[in-house]
Amino acid sequence: MKALVFHGPGKSSWDEVSDPAVEDPADVIVRVDTVTICGTDLHILRGDVPDVAPGTVLGHEAVGEVVEAGADVRTVRAGDRVLVSCITACGRCSYCRNRSYGQCRAGGGWVLGHTINGAQAEYVRVPFADLSVHPLPDSVRSQDAVLLADIFPTGYEVGVLNGAVRPMQTVVVVGAGPIGLAAVATAKLFSPGQIIAVDRATARLDAAERLGADTKVAAGEGPERVVSELTDGLGADVAIEAVGVAETFEMCTRMVRPGGHVANVGVHGGPAQLHLEDLWIKDVTVTTGLVDTYSTPMLLGMLRAGRLPVSSLVTHTFDLGEMEDAYDIFSRPSETRALKVVLNR
Amino acid sequence: MKALVFHGPGKSSWDEVSDPAVEDPADVIVRVDTVTICGTDLHILRGDVPDVAPGTVLGHEAVGEVVEAGADVRTVRAGDRVLVSCITACGRCSYCRNRSYGQCRAGGGWVLGHTINGAQAEYVRVPFADLSVHPLPDSVRSQDAVLLADIFPTGYEVGVLNGAVRPMQTVVVVGAGPIGLAAVATAKLFSPGQIIAVDRATARLDAAERLGADTKVAAGEGPERVVSELTDGLGADVAIEAVGVAETFEMCTRMVRPGGHVANVGVHGGPAQLHLEDLWIKDVTVTTGLVDTYSTPMLLGMLRAGRLPVSSLVTHTFDLGEMEDAYDIFSRPSETRALKVVLNR
Amino acid sequence: MKALVFHGPGKSSWDEVSDPAVEDPADVIVRVDTVTICGTDLHILRGDVPDVAPGTVLGHEAVGEVVEAGADVRTVRAGDRVLVSCITACGRCSYCRNRSYGQCRAGGGWVLGHTINGAQAEYVRVPFADLSVHPLPDSVRSQDAVLLADIFPTGYEVGVLNGAVRPMQTVVVVGAGPIGLAAVATAKLFSPGQIIAVDRATARLDAAERLGADTKVAAGEGPERVVSELTDGLGADVAIEAVGVAETFEMCTRMVRPGGHVANVGVHGGPAQLHLEDLWIKDVTVTTGLVDTYSTPMLLGMLRAGRLPVSSLVTHTFDLGEMEDAYDIFSRPSETRALKVVLNR
Amino acid sequence: MKALVFHGPGKSSWDEVSDPAVEDPADVIVRVDTVTICGTDLHILRGDVPDVAPGTVLGHEAVGEVVEAGADVRTVRAGDRVLVSCITACGRCSYCRNRSYGQCRAGGGWVLGHTINGAQAEYVRVPFADLSVHPLPDSVRSQDAVLLADIFPTGYEVGVLNGAVRPMQTVVVVGAGPIGLAAVATAKLFSPGQIIAVDRATARLDAAERLGADTKVAAGEGPERVVSELTDGLGADVAIEAVGVAETFEMCTRMVRPGGHVANVGVHGGPAQLHLEDLWIKDVTVTTGLVDTYSTPMLLGMLRAGRLPVSSLVTHTFDLGEMEDAYDIFSRPSETRALKVVLNR
Repeated sequence: MKALVFHGPGKSSWDEVSDPAVEDPADVIVRVDTVTICGTDLHILRGDVPDVAPGTVLGHEAVGEVVEAGADVRTVRAGDRVLVSCITACGRCSYCRNRSYGQCRAGGGWVLGHTINGAQAEYVRVPFADLSVHPLPDSVRSQDAVLLADIFPTGYEVGVLNGAVRPMQTVVVVGAGPIGLAAVATAKLFSPGQIIAVDRATARLDAAERLGADTKVAAGEGPERVVSELTDGLGADVAIEAVGVAETFEMCTRMVRPGGHVANVGVHGGPAQLHLEDLWIKDVTVTTGLVDTYSTPMLLGMLRAGRLPVSSLVTHTFDLGEMEDAYDIFSRPSETRALKVVLNR
Repeated sequence: MKALVFHGPGKSSWDEVSDPAVEDPADVIVRVDTVTICGTDLHILRGDVPDVAPGTVLGHEAVGEVVEAGADVRTVRAGDRVLVSCITACGRCSYCRNRSYGQCRAGGGWVLGHTINGAQAEYVRVPFADLSVHPLPDSVRSQDAVLLADIFPTGYEVGVLNGAVRPMQTVVVVGAGPIGLAAVATAKLFSPGQIIAVDRATARLDAAERLGADTKVAAGEGPERVVSELTDGLGADVAIEAVGVAETFEMCTRMVRPGGHVANVGVHGGPAQLHLEDLWIKDVTVTTGLVDTYSTPMLLGMLRAGRLPVSSLVTHTFDLGEMEDAYDIFSRPSETRALKVVLNR
Repeated sequence: MKALVFHGPGKSSWDEVSDPAVEDPADVIVRVDTVTICGTDLHILRGDVPDVAPGTVLGHEAVGEVVEAGADVRTVRAGDRVLVSCITACGRCSYCRNRSYGQCRAGGGWVLGHTINGAQAEYVRVPFADLSVHPLPDSVRSQDAVLLADIFPTGYEVGVLNGAVRPMQTVVVVGAGPIGLAAVATAKLFSPGQIIAVDRATARLDAAERLGADTKVAAGEGPERVVSELTDGLGADVAIEAVGVAETFEMCTRMVRPGGHVANVGVHGGPAQLHLEDLWIKDVTVTTGLVDTYSTPMLLGMLRAGRLPVSSLVTHTFDLGEMEDAYDIFSRPSETRALKVVLNR
Repeated sequence: MKALVFHGPGKSSWDEVSDPAVEDPADVIVRVDTVTICGTDLHILRGDVPDVAPGTVLGHEAVGEVVEAGADVRTVRAGDRVLVSCITACGRCSYCRNRSYGQCRAGGGWVLGHTINGAQAEYVRVPFADLSVHPLPDSVRSQDAVLLADIFPTGYEVGVLNGAVRPMQTVVVVGAGPIGLAAVATAKLFSPGQIIAVDRATARLDAAERLGADTKVAAGEGPERVVSELTDGLGADVAIEAVGVAETFEMCTRMVRPGGHVANVGVHGGPAQLHLEDLWIKDVTVTTGLVDTYSTPMLLGMLRAGRLPVSSLVTHTFDLGEMEDAYDIFSRPSETRALKVVLNR
């Protein structure tokens, strides 16, 4: 089959590789019908994620049809159309028993396109299928569902739920890329008083506004001052970091009110300063987290009900064979205005 | 009256000053019978807390008798023996309505010995008395109760409750000074599986052991390795920082397991590095906080029932007039082995 | 002044009584500009609330202008337009310190029109004014704000928050009177998947639909069967009882899914059967509660932002002097279709 | 093999039946080394649990050795000594994903000795073994561990955790049979201020005292009055019902303070009166629940650490073949003073 293979920092190609096969009775093989590219894939290509070995097929967000199911698999079978979640879960370890699937201690967690071959391919092997793929109702389109493989549960769990958004609160989302936009959209489930979106790119701020942000602030326009003004000087109740650099994280810790939450969603490559000389007295809660995808069934219910604004996140569509073009477009968002690029078989 | 007056960095003295008087109908005047010195007072003397103006009487932990009560005061009256809490609370602002008394927006919070005259004096004026002093039953000794003015609620609320200690968990307390020891003692209320105390001073580790720590580790003996070994490599469920320097805070973030809590209690004078490149994926919750003292009534109940091991924290006792000697002893703990020094009228 | 005086079961009249005066320095006197009648007032008139003494002025929901403030009052002064909450709070007792204002142990709680004279009058004395009245911004109309004196915080706190409504859940609200409708409207703040309203009256079900109910079921149409069908036989996540009779409470306990919540909001005059032979194994949480009104500031923020659909709850408007007519209309809702009746000076 | 077979109300015998075999690849077969009898088994014999079909082997609490494991089983294998939990869990349904194993929708929950053959036998088939049996460390005795099959997780989860016991609270446990005693013992993990045990039998009250109850009250000595006196008239923070009759449940609802919790643990055969005319205003939370056994790993950790007082619950020991004698003793506790009877191979 064809697959997007990582060949070390800066190098990847759409190669012919051998088809995956069931290796463990809990595995399924999924024929990939729809797949997308994640900002994390770009991090891998830059060499920021050293535990990805050259030769690995990338990708952890897909929808497709189960073509083979191992003997242990109980909840899906060949012929089922499924969402392949970015997180797989053994379901048996102490973390999985607490729904912390992202921290699975027995071979699950984020493995697809990371420590095993991923989903940017014609076929993908998914371990622990019972807790790692989700059957899709007919009424849900694959190109919509694929956004629930990673970005929607991530924005919701790691941003909105970790941030503990409540009615009438002020939520600031720093970074209006796909994850930040998913946080904007799902923050609205708790009826915040206002959502303030911060980004450098006008197109992304416009997308944030379409998804429900009340105020958009360009990075150069003094986001801290704007947040202060819009909160009578108090600060935001919840600040969601969705960029992944020290500067925006530190900005979040300055934007948050005493007693507020900073929910880090961004993937960071280096440390940030935590200004404890200011924060020690401020009753702040800072959370980090890899998504667990425990919310995926709920989000699929919302999608099925037509209540999740997924479409506006997809800016470009490709054929599966155009994987390299899709990477090219996705990796130059300031020029291409790409948010999510979706590839269909 | 006599009082310990701050005269700018490095300077303080036991001076004759004018007696306090009721300034607001919610005030009480308390004759100080027992008072103690806090590590924060040393920070002030070093010049680390610039909003303390020269001329301010220091001290925020006392027990004494109400000698005058303003017209609005309803819950205590002249003649009552009371605990003077380090936190005063207006009871009306949005923070006070949520029990976040430490963040009071209307003149309360930590003001005693900070922005107004404090309790290291023969008399002290306490604002918003109804929510800021606590009547004491006869069976409770003043020298015991004074430890509930700050360190016990701080260790309990900011360390143990923010850290969310649960039965059978591993709790590591870094820093076995008075606050860290209060965290050790109150962590036991939730039946952790083990408490590991870390400090540089043997005497403090011994005190931690007396208060219930299961393992004591000298700072130089590789505390991170010990925690790892005692948790099968997983890390502590809860790490409580009770020193207030970057090095120990960062150690806590390395010691905690995925999904665990770092509860910062220490008063910091500078920033720490937050290694988000490791932590972003680790589901860690970091909390900071000034004490609110909402737990003081519960802790007083424990003290009354003889269930709070307060006495072992008091190493030295002085007459009130020996304030400068008490400061001297308290400021050289490595030589004097001082934990809490208590001064009685 | 004129006031609606209770003269024992079945008897009340709009009488001339003496004006209220400040009795305690924490009191305010409010000139009533807008007032409404509560279903509880009808209970009192029927003799169901025996602790209301003959001679008491009824009413616990008003908006008006402070005309006099006691010496202790800090947050409002003469001339302020305020919402008079149905709950007053001393702010000092153990319950008030936990925001359980409805359970105040020191003279607050539900006292207006219950154990002291109430607000269906030209003037009303409000104790503990600082925590019991809420200043209103100019942009908020009195006739809208008055709905936040009782029914909106009650529906929200006792129904929606006690019921723990979460995104995509199924919420059934049994009883679409004013309180039930407020529960429907505020349940939407948490983005439930569907709200099912049950009542006997078509007009009330129509109001529920306007406020956001997805399904309306007449009491005679088999509400249990409908809930079962709409939840694949599982039952509702949250059932809110807003009638106050045994039959509807018991229906709620049958409608709820295993692990779900029954939030009782109704005022009951007798016991219900709790079928523990079915429920013991079912992981059900049943809550009861008097409102605390801790959510009133948040709800006022929503009202100010134009996000609370209050107007559709007001069906009739009267002059203050037409109090007896208003009672007549309000007490015959099946004929008059009355929801809330509002009286303005 | 031999097994205790239910033959309809009032009839059971220790019969020769066919050995169990693996029926599903997730099953294990366990050779029973230690087993006990539950009060629920007596209910079944009385005919109170009609879904138990005649011919069913009873019993849902055992320790033994895995003698065969199905092909899907990953966490245990033949030769392992395991605790057989009273609850089995598919691990895949929506309830299991939320740790509500007792409510499993896919064939788990309480099935052993209920809808399938149970553990009062020489061998038992346990479905969904990965989430339903727990490997035991050598240092833990089988006769101790068997108390963690049901009564300790039940007392802890359904009594103590549902009741939300907190430090210094007053906890009343009504019913000092095995489950009530487990609630007493595990309530202490949260350092309540006092535990009051209520029962008719002096021997059981003595056992409660040994396990940590501070006050014991015979049913005829006015337990409501005692609770009132010991709480300054306020009532208990938490009332745990561990009998299973209407009278004691209703007593619990009268004993609890405003804002308190009633945690029902008892297995009820009929309804109770819920006096909503008193409770509607009282902010009470009533919970019911079947155990989920999510706490079993934690409790096993406590047992291993020697911190769970299991032994004092075992009053009688038998050989496995003396099953009928054991039932006889266990069914006449007022004469035999039996708490738990344990049978060993």
